[in-house]
Amino acid sequence: MKIEAEWMRGGTSKCWVFEADQLGDGASLDSLLPRVFGSPDSRQIDGVGGATSTTSKAMILDRPAEDGIDVDFTFAQVGIEEATVDWGSNCGNCSAVVGLYAIEKGWVVPGGDVTKIVTRNTNTGQIIVQRVATPAGALPIVPDAQMPGVPFPGYRVGLGFQDPAGKTTGALLPTGSATDTITAGGTRWTVSMVDAGAPVVIVRAEDLGLDPARYENWLAGVELQLDTLDQIRRQAAVRMGLAPTTAAAARAIPKLAIAAAPADSGDRDAADINVMMLSMGRPHPALAITGSIALTLAARTPGTVLHHMTGGTQGAALKLRTPAGVLETWTEENDGGLLVGVDRTARTIATTVIHLPEALGSAAEEAFAGATR
Amino acid sequence: MKIEAEWMRGGTSKCWVFEADQLGDGASLDSLLPRVFGSPDSRQIDGVGGATSTTSKAMILDRPAEDGIDVDFTFAQVGIEEATVDWGSNCGNCSAVVGLYAIEKGWVVPGGDVTKIVTRNTNTGQIIVQRVATPAGALPIVPDAQMPGVPFPGYRVGLGFQDPAGKTTGALLPTGSATDTITAGGTRWTVSMVDAGAPVVIVRAEDLGLDPARYENWLAGVELQLDTLDQIRRQAAVRMGLAPTTAAAARAIPKLAIAAAPADSGDRDAADINVMMLSMGRPHPALAITGSIALTLAARTPGTVLHHMTGGTQGAALKLRTPAGVLETWTEENDGGLLVGVDRTARTIATTVIHLPEALGSAAEEAFAGATR
Repeated sequence: MKIEAEWMRGGTSKCWVFEADQLGDGASLDSLLPRVFGSPDSRQIDGVGGATSTTSKAMILDRPAEDGIDVDFTFAQVGIEEATVDWGSNCGNCSAVVGLYAIEKGWVVPGGDVTKIVTRNTNTGQIIVQRVATPAGALPIVPDAQMPGVPFPGYRVGLGFQDPAGKTTGALLPTGSATDTITAGGTRWTVSMVDAGAPVVIVRAEDLGLDPARYENWLAGVELQLDTLDQIRRQAAVRMGLAPTTAAAARAIPKLAIAAAPADSGDRDAADINVMMLSMGRPHPALAITGSIALTLAARTPGTVLHHMTGGTQGAALKLRTPAGVLETWTEENDGGLLVGVDRTARTIATTVIHLPEALGSAAEEAFAGATR
Repeated sequence: MKIEAEWMRGGTSKCWVFEADQLGDGASLDSLLPRVFGSPDSRQIDGVGGATSTTSKAMILDRPAEDGIDVDFTFAQVGIEEATVDWGSNCGNCSAVVGLYAIEKGWVVPGGDVTKIVTRNTNTGQIIVQRVATPAGALPIVPDAQMPGVPFPGYRVGLGFQDPAGKTTGALLPTGSATDTITAGGTRWTVSMVDAGAPVVIVRAEDLGLDPARYENWLAGVELQLDTLDQIRRQAAVRMGLAPTTAAAARAIPKLAIAAAPADSGDRDAADINVMMLSMGRPHPALAITGSIALTLAARTPGTVLHHMTGGTQGAALKLRTPAGVLETWTEENDGGLLVGVDRTARTIATTVIHLPEALGSAAEEAFAGATR
C-alpha cells in the first residue's frame, strides 16, 4: 500500500498533506493515520510522525463543487502514545499550507501580486481567506519571507478568519459574560472565556504570581502550575458548554492562554500583550494561531481581562509577545463582516510516497481501495 | 533544487538515504545536509530532521567498482542546534537499511531464503555482511520481523561485522590492557577500553552505586552522574589515542557503557549482561549497535570487566539487557576471520523528493550540479 503526500511546513508546524480521494472515509482514517504516523509509540520511529504535538499533524484537502470555496480542508491531530485521531479542532499553523498547496498543484491559478484562495476548515466550518504573495503573478523561485520561531524563509501566507466568533459554541462569549470567576486549586480566578478561531480561556499572569516585567521567567513558573491550570481549563470546558463534566473535557479544547500587559512603555511599543499558551497540557513553543484569533477579538471586546490590559486602544493590529517572538494579528472589513488574521510562512519540505506494507484489516482495505481508485 | 531520498527505519533509528551521485562532494555536504535537515534549529521545523539524535541521520550509498563489495555507505550524523555534520563514526542501526535498499532498488538480486549483501562503511572501513530474509527468493510482501524498541514489524536484517577489532585505533585493546584505572570526579574507576565496531569505555554499574538487581532504577541514577561519566569518557578518549586532550575529545566517541551481571540465576537466563549506554552525552533509549559489537568482543576477552561479569562462559550468543529490551549478538567464523553480529529490522517509510528552494552559495551549487547531472 502506497499513499501520496506532501510534507509541508505551515508556520511553526510540520504537516502531512493528503488529498481526500487518496484516502478512505473517516472510519478508516482513525486506524490508518496512526499507523502511517507510527503510533502508538512515544518515538513514532516506524512512521512519518515527528513525536511532538506540532509534528504529528495531518491535513486532508478536497476541492468542493460549491461556488465560492476553492479548497475544503480537514485537520487531524494524530495521537503519539495512543493510536487515536482528534478531529475536534483546526490547526492555524497547518492551515497556512492550504493556499500554497492549491497554487503548487494548479488548483488555483495565481494572478496579480497577491493570489486569494478561499478555504474552508471542515472541523469547525471556519472560512479562512488565504492570500499568498505571488509577485508578477507567480510564486517566487526562492521564497524569502521570515516569521518568528522559524529560522528559514518560506512563502508569505496571510490567513484571514472570516467572522470567527462563536464557530464552536455559537457565541463569542459562550457564558454570556466577558469575565467570569472559576474556582480551582482552592483559589478563585478571574478569567475570560471566548470562542473565536478556537475556544480559549484567558488567565491573568499576575494571578499566577508571574511578573509581567519578567516574561523570560514565565515558563518556569507555568511549569509548576500545570495541574492547577488544567483544572481551570476543565472548569472552563464545562462553563463554555464544551463538556458535560470536568472529567469529560477534551485535552485539545478549550485552549488556555496566560496574559499580562507589558511592564513599561518601551515594552509596550514592542508588544500590546505578553502571552503564553498551553496546548495539549504543555506550554506552546510559540502560539496556536487559532488561539491568537480568539485573543484578538477578546482584546476588542469591552469587559474582558484582555480589554482591561490593552485599554481597548489598539488599532487594526495587535502585537502578541510569545516565547518564539512577537506575533502581529490584524482585522479588516470583508464581505460585510470581519476578517481577523495573521501572517505566516509556509513551504513544501518534500513530495513523498508513503509505504505501508502491513495489512490493516477491513478499515485499511477500504482506504487501500480509495488509494488505488 | 530537488533531491531524491528514501526515508527508512533501520533498527531504532530513522535514516535519510541518498545515492552519492545525487549529491555533491564532501565539502558541499557539510553545508547541504544541515539545510536539508533544517539545522540549526532545536526543532528542525523547516527540514526533514526529527530533532533527536536518532532521527537526524543520513546515509549516502554508492556502488563501488571493486569486486567483493556490493555497496559502500557513508554515515552522517547531522547536527541539530548547530549546522554541522559529524563524519567520525558509523551508525549500526542505520547500517541495517543498506542491504534492504540494495534489494529494493535492484542493485542486488535476491536469491534463496537469505540474500547476502557485502557492504562497507567508509567512515570506519568496516565490512558489514548483511543477510536479508528473502523466503523463496523474494522480500515478503508483508514484513513480519519484530525487534525490541520498535512496535511495528520490518524486514529482518542480520548485520555481521567482519573482524571488527581495532578499526578505529588499530587494536582491540588500544591501551594494551584489558582493564585500566581512570580518575574522574575525585574517584578511581576500574574500566575496560575496547575498540570493535566503535571505541567504547565500559564502567561497572556497582562503582556508580547502581544496584544490579534494580535495572529499572539505573536511568535515574545515571542522570545524576552525567558530568562524572563524561569526565571518564574524555579521559578514555585520551588513553585510547582518540584525542590529544580531554577538552579535545569528540562527543560521539568513545561511547560509554555501564554494565553489571544480572542479579540472580533467573535473571541470568534472560540476559548475560545488563547494560546502559550513553550516546552524545545522554542515556541511549536502546543500545548503539556498534557499541554492542564492542561489548561482545569485550565479553570474550579475558581480563576485561565484562569477562569478569560473564565468567567468559557464554557461547556464540550474548544477551544484552537494554532499556528497550534484550538484544542478542552472535559470533561466527567467516572468511578465515570472525563475524560479530546482531539482528535488526528495517523498513522503507517513504520514497521522497526533498525540496530545497534556497540558494546555498557555491558549495550548494556544486551539489546542485551533482544532483542534476
